[in-house]
Amino acid sequence: MSSCQIDTKVIRPIRFFNGQCQMLDQRLLPAEEVWISYKTYQDVAEAIRTMVVRGAPAIGVAAAIGAWFGARDIEAESSWDFFQEFKQICAELLATRPTAVNLSWALERMKHFAESNLDRSIIELKIGLEYEALAITQEDEKINRSMGQHGEPLLANGARVLTHCNAGALATAGYGTALGVIRAAVEAGKKISVIADETRPFLQGARLTAWELQKDDIPVTLICDNMAGYLMRQGEIDCVIVGADRISANGDVANKIGTYTVAVLAKEHNIPFYVAAPISTIDLSLADGSLIPIEERDDREITHIKDIQLAPEGISIRNPAFDVTPHRLITAIITENGVVRGDYLNGLERVVKQ
Amino acid sequence: MSSCQIDTKVIRPIRFFNGQCQMLDQRLLPAEEVWISYKTYQDVAEAIRTMVVRGAPAIGVAAAIGAWFGARDIEAESSWDFFQEFKQICAELLATRPTAVNLSWALERMKHFAESNLDRSIIELKIGLEYEALAITQEDEKINRSMGQHGEPLLANGARVLTHCNAGALATAGYGTALGVIRAAVEAGKKISVIADETRPFLQGARLTAWELQKDDIPVTLICDNMAGYLMRQGEIDCVIVGADRISANGDVANKIGTYTVAVLAKEHNIPFYVAAPISTIDLSLADGSLIPIEERDDREITHIKDIQLAPEGISIRNPAFDVTPHRLITAIITENGVVRGDYLNGLERVVKQ
Repeated sequence: MSSCQIDTKVIRPIRFFNGQCQMLDQRLLPAEEVWISYKTYQDVAEAIRTMVVRGAPAIGVAAAIGAWFGARDIEAESSWDFFQEFKQICAELLATRPTAVNLSWALERMKHFAESNLDRSIIELKIGLEYEALAITQEDEKINRSMGQHGEPLLANGARVLTHCNAGALATAGYGTALGVIRAAVEAGKKISVIADETRPFLQGARLTAWELQKDDIPVTLICDNMAGYLMRQGEIDCVIVGADRISANGDVANKIGTYTVAVLAKEHNIPFYVAAPISTIDLSLADGSLIPIEERDDREITHIKDIQLAPEGISIRNPAFDVTPHRLITAIITENGVVRGDYLNGLERVVKQ
Repeated sequence: MSSCQIDTKVIRPIRFFNGQCQMLDQRLLPAEEVWISYKTYQDVAEAIRTMVVRGAPAIGVAAAIGAWFGARDIEAESSWDFFQEFKQICAELLATRPTAVNLSWALERMKHFAESNLDRSIIELKIGLEYEALAITQEDEKINRSMGQHGEPLLANGARVLTHCNAGALATAGYGTALGVIRAAVEAGKKISVIADETRPFLQGARLTAWELQKDDIPVTLICDNMAGYLMRQGEIDCVIVGADRISANGDVANKIGTYTVAVLAKEHNIPFYVAAPISTIDLSLADGSLIPIEERDDREITHIKDIQLAPEGISIRNPAFDVTPHRLITAIITENGVVRGDYLNGLERVVKQ
């Protein structure tokens, strides 16, 4: 079994090696850096549901590891019986969060691996699935570095780049999607500064993006979500780059709530709006973004910060966790297989099937 | 001395009668309703600076009361000496917050009263200034009710109205500007529901607008600032109504940070965008909104909620408290002297000089 080296200078929110899995509890950042060990698929499912781990690529990786934990613990008489139980475990993991398609992508890949090897013994299937989960984990960072290489030419030297939510190392196995492109630009010698939306209600921008960019010494300024328009109008933003949770065949992008607003503002100010996402985020089965399911999360995320009450008791709340940005507002979509512009219908199919 | 009746069912954040002043500490709402007594102009200045009281009309009222406290305590030999000291006190009160012009308007009115009565004795001046501060307080609510009458025809029965920040009873002496128009529509028998942006970082929407509408049994749903675009795209918002901190001669509107973003979104979705403000908010001396000073407030408003740390230590912050919405994005400006549309340059001058 190969093992993943831990370089403590590089931010990787999921440690998976020698059959062990630890995840950085992203709910506690930036105040505390707490790693939690996971041993069962049920616990991994709960970690995804409660956002110990979040970010579309990262929850795909976590789900693959969870699926392997589930597989490892199956006691079955035949490979066929094993596979039936394994599919059930994958269905439970899939039900944790609805919007990010990477979750489904990773679980489909695990199921496909099992189904393709049903002629093997159960012990061989279990070992194979561990390799597959490890491959998904390790490939994710490579994919992000490739995305960075394709995307970094879009960022000019001196660019002041707005990002929303956290599409960074913490949202992936490492390096990041949107922040991966920024890291690649910095590694290419460009001077880049980042403006991070705090991203209510979960504050991924304040707590995670600010934290990981500060760790990497990339200049970052934190603002509230409602300040981006002001800075754009003042001429203080040169481009926007965000991640994605699901991209439909026509290039509509589901991403963290507020992304659509940033895209409308970018259009109003003639500022390029880029999306960086692996092809595992592209769902060619959906014709357009209206078909992407939007998760509504618990009221308490808005009414409270820890135990502090921010709103009157019993107030009515809407808490959509994502929105859909129509493709007409998107300047380009950056993937590990190249940059797609304009004709998203053909362009996305091309990068997916490459 | 006439006294202001306290109707406990009606929300009035400033109680000023018989020379006593109490203000509801708006920093503690909705968890606690604490009234603080004020006796000196320095304490009133501090209350404005630290946002015990906020909202353009309300800080105008508070400043007038503060100016009277200052006047009352002046020990001078002549009315002329009295006036020199009084002007200094007004200057200190004016320096508390830069954006809302109502502060300056109320203090100018107090100074004008004093200057027009310099032939009177100091004791008469002091009594006169108390009457003037009381008049400013009592007129404010009447002005808002008049604004409500002018504005309510713009809200259709069944309208779902988005508002940003708190332009309610709590932002005025009572009744509210934007929320006053909503209250007038409800009093006219219309079914109105309100969507309130939480309004980071000070959370005036979550803490104040939600609180006062809930008290008045007006249906209100709270969202994060970054969700308004999503709801507009879903067809769940019929119009927007906000208050103002300063309006330049051409109709550009300075209001709470994030207002500009809501206006851009409203335009994108062809949703009417209304501003409700008393004529004391209109500053004909400024040709356009670029001349309105924008206050930047303390980093800690963004990095912390009470003692809870939301962002990494030492992170760079921008915290503009206001932004400017250009007049081209504004469907109409509602004042106590009528509704202005289209030709703001002439229309605003007309309502101010009426």
